[in-house]
Amino acid sequence: MHVREMISTHPHFQGKAADALLACIEQCYACAQTCTSCADACLGEAEIAPLVQCIRRNLDCADLCMATGAMASRRTGSNIEVLRAALNACAEACRVCGTECRGHAEMHEHCRICADACQSCEQACRTALPQVH
Amino acid sequence: MHVREMISTHPHFQGKAADALLACIEQCYACAQTCTSCADACLGEAEIAPLVQCIRRNLDCADLCMATGAMASRRTGSNIEVLRAALNACAEACRVCGTECRGHAEMHEHCRICADACQSCEQACRTALPQVH
Amino acid sequence: MHVREMISTHPHFQGKAADALLACIEQCYACAQTCTSCADACLGEAEIAPLVQCIRRNLDCADLCMATGAMASRRTGSNIEVLRAALNACAEACRVCGTECRGHAEMHEHCRICADACQSCEQACRTALPQVH
Amino acid sequence: MHVREMISTHPHFQGKAADALLACIEQCYACAQTCTSCADACLGEAEIAPLVQCIRRNLDCADLCMATGAMASRRTGSNIEVLRAALNACAEACRVCGTECRGHAEMHEHCRICADACQSCEQACRTALPQVH
Repeated sequence: MHVREMISTHPHFQGKAADALLACIEQCYACAQTCTSCADACLGEAEIAPLVQCIRRNLDCADLCMATGAMASRRTGSNIEVLRAALNACAEACRVCGTECRGHAEMHEHCRICADACQSCEQACRTALPQVH
Repeated sequence: MHVREMISTHPHFQGKAADALLACIEQCYACAQTCTSCADACLGEAEIAPLVQCIRRNLDCADLCMATGAMASRRTGSNIEVLRAALNACAEACRVCGTECRGHAEMHEHCRICADACQSCEQACRTALPQVH
Repeated sequence: MHVREMISTHPHFQGKAADALLACIEQCYACAQTCTSCADACLGEAEIAPLVQCIRRNLDCADLCMATGAMASRRTGSNIEVLRAALNACAEACRVCGTECRGHAEMHEHCRICADACQSCEQACRTALPQVH
Repeated sequence: MHVREMISTHPHFQGKAADALLACIEQCYACAQTCTSCADACLGEAEIAPLVQCIRRNLDCADLCMATGAMASRRTGSNIEVLRAALNACAEACRVCGTECRGHAEMHEHCRICADACQSCEQACRTALPQVH
């Protein structure tokens, strides 16, 4: 990922990157990929029924992470209220998906990794929120 | 769009579709397409500088509408808190993008159509919110 | 959807819209929503195992339809080769997903509707291809 | 990114990951973010007119990279023909966007970084293609 390099060459760059937002962008893209992958791994398990809710939460989380990662990459547009609402929704999606995955972590290693990715992304979104103003 | 047909054949369908949510799904997909198209039309204008903020808001709005439309299409997963946060973020994106587009509506017909699409989508998201519980 | 209105107000509009491409954009957005909805309906069925491949093809088809619908909405950029490759990939995704869904159509009405949506979208992509040059 | 960890815990994992496809997934997500960021940086430049084509190609490339990265993350579904068509379209989008960005690389450092990202992603897609069969 070239998040930091790209921001530092942006014409509106002010000489001090918002580190928390950069970390948040990286986490959003990583979490979107992990959730997409976890949904597919769940579909490959012998017993799918207990994982149905997990798959849905994976897909919801991936969709919101992608949208939020893209919006945060366009932060210079100062679309502040909207980015704040997106970060908030993304943190919520990560919290709910992470909690669900955590419940399957002992059975399925892919759910354990996904729970960690969701937790990191939730934290990154919440840490970035006060920097978006 | 086959939103209504699909929901009525869903195995969890309860005999009474949440009309407001169905309308919201349709508006989200329509608004995503309209905003994507408006951004491109703005890029085609002779004077782009006054439209830069409009283009960014179009792109943000399209991203959130797509994510929210997909999530709302998976509503049966009862991922209630996350869908509420997404509907809220989407309504906010539509409000801000719609206001921006309205300001260019006299100059650019594509911005007028887009302002109307954003307003309809914002309203559809806000009307659906109390039905998601 | 405001596909036609938006194109006719585009500054690069030449007085004659490419009808096949407009139809293709509408079908791509509709098919993306239908496939997202079909994947979720499949996850709600009592017997999921026979539908696993269907769910994956639904998700792949939805992703390609969204990307292609957005790109076709930006057709004025004359990114011809890329749009052609995308239309081709989208038609292929629709063909494969439609065939899969058709196989479940007698058991599941949502798969029948989705098979029809995929078939219409595949046809729209193939009809649009010769107009993109 | 947790691409490798996730694949190795996938229930269908065969003991030997397709390295080229894993690299391709990472490049697709990275390139999507870089192109989204480059489009926004271009919009922030004093002279936008010479960058309009670049912005459009950035947006097309980001859309195809996202769809392809997600599909490749679901590779276990053996949706072979569709993934091949998507990898091909993505390589084409990266080639065209990378060439455009290269033309602005001396003026704009963000275009230089983006040209490199597109080139890496194009190469990764082309290298992965023969492994998808």
